[in-house]
Amino acid sequence: MKPYIHFVQYYETDKMGITHHSNYIRFMEEARLDFFKQIGFDYLEFEKLGIISPVVGLNNIKYRKPTTVGDEIAIEIKITKYTGVSLTVHYTMKKGEVLVLEGDSEHCFLSKEGRILVISEKNFPEFHAKMNSLLLSE
Amino acid sequence: MKPYIHFVQYYETDKMGITHHSNYIRFMEEARLDFFKQIGFDYLEFEKLGIISPVVGLNNIKYRKPTTVGDEIAIEIKITKYTGVSLTVHYTMKKGEVLVLEGDSEHCFLSKEGRILVISEKNFPEFHAKMNSLLLSE
Amino acid sequence: MKPYIHFVQYYETDKMGITHHSNYIRFMEEARLDFFKQIGFDYLEFEKLGIISPVVGLNNIKYRKPTTVGDEIAIEIKITKYTGVSLTVHYTMKKGEVLVLEGDSEHCFLSKEGRILVISEKNFPEFHAKMNSLLLSE
Amino acid sequence: MKPYIHFVQYYETDKMGITHHSNYIRFMEEARLDFFKQIGFDYLEFEKLGIISPVVGLNNIKYRKPTTVGDEIAIEIKITKYTGVSLTVHYTMKKGEVLVLEGDSEHCFLSKEGRILVISEKNFPEFHAKMNSLLLSE
Repeated sequence: MKPYIHFVQYYETDKMGITHHSNYIRFMEEARLDFFKQIGFDYLEFEKLGIISPVVGLNNIKYRKPTTVGDEIAIEIKITKYTGVSLTVHYTMKKGEVLVLEGDSEHCFLSKEGRILVISEKNFPEFHAKMNSLLLSE
Repeated sequence: MKPYIHFVQYYETDKMGITHHSNYIRFMEEARLDFFKQIGFDYLEFEKLGIISPVVGLNNIKYRKPTTVGDEIAIEIKITKYTGVSLTVHYTMKKGEVLVLEGDSEHCFLSKEGRILVISEKNFPEFHAKMNSLLLSE
Repeated sequence: MKPYIHFVQYYETDKMGITHHSNYIRFMEEARLDFFKQIGFDYLEFEKLGIISPVVGLNNIKYRKPTTVGDEIAIEIKITKYTGVSLTVHYTMKKGEVLVLEGDSEHCFLSKEGRILVISEKNFPEFHAKMNSLLLSE
Repeated sequence: MKPYIHFVQYYETDKMGITHHSNYIRFMEEARLDFFKQIGFDYLEFEKLGIISPVVGLNNIKYRKPTTVGDEIAIEIKITKYTGVSLTVHYTMKKGEVLVLEGDSEHCFLSKEGRILVISEKNFPEFHAKMNSLLLSE
């Protein structure tokens, strides 16, 4: 799995001269969509089928070191929890060898009408198996 | 007509210590929606009816003076062109007596399916009359 | 203490039709700066003196209900931890009676040169006393 | 000269399901910094030397076709005016063969203290010559 690279942009800095902390939440989303595409589950295709997976929580977001425009942030993702009802994604962001941010996002699954979806081997066998295999590989 | 007030936020600044230039395009949108609501045409209601009015152009955007977090920007709007097919909105942004930005946005009208709508006294008599009266009042 | 009000803007929505989850982190910042100003400690004044208080963590961010453009979000703030070295701020966001988001941000104090500041009754007696009194009032 | 590529992100869409129009102003900045780096004048190095080149105007921004998350936008840049006092940059954005946006940004040159800089063969001979040669090559 290739880490996702985000190049920090000028407009992502703030008057402290560093990347505004809110933008890392966006980088998490970029990396997450890239990760799911890499493992064969393009989120945008799911969305077209009427399945969405909104962020329901952010936890243990730790800002370790600042970054700024021109910096290259490498983002690695692990699936740390999966129940079929919810999914927890862990992020590690590095600039070279320097740890920049760690944190987790939590997701549920919803139908287009906003009803909670329980993913299982019956309705989404391939996705279900993949999530479970990723959990085991940690 | 009351000018629209935008209070500049910390996250709207960049590493120069001033409001990032892209954000003024967002303030124009804020002021425009407020303006249409004030004159009795809530854009969000139009959208629910399936009529949208996207930005098709930005012209003569002149950044006169910088602003920063904590500043209060007063935005005045005039309708400077209206043909039923397109609409031009002019913005004047001030911080106290200081001119901060001037500029224009150009809009068309579309149906939800993306077809061009021609507004006239036949299909939208009240909106059509209002736009024409605003033009005359300049 | 008046809750801080954020009016959701069109540009804050995403293709799901709701406020993008990253924007709430920005609303937290808006509310936090407003809160400190209301209690007599304008963050921007501190920054001019060379004291900054960056976000070092986000915890227990729970997205309860979505919002969208036109919605009015009322944000209440409590100081839930203060040691002189770090500060934890708790946020409750509501749309009318509906709970929209809860969560915490954690902050440290730094000098302009990036050195850790320990706030005490010796160097910042008024701020120190205020933080402790806010903790007790919970 | 390689065109700059921007991959549209989820958080760059709005409730219309398309890239919010304000974001293209940010893509222009991304492409501009990349362009200057490619021709050997890294803007961030200039900034360290105390020379900044803020956006003073946006002109003839024409939104031709919408884009959305997952789209790849190729941005080409030309220098269309240069006087030593001001600089005009022209942008052409394409998604495959489809023209997405055209437009211009105008810039001046300032010292860190905010004084207007006149670039000439005397103070910045290499940059001055490069800008003039780019103009001639059109």
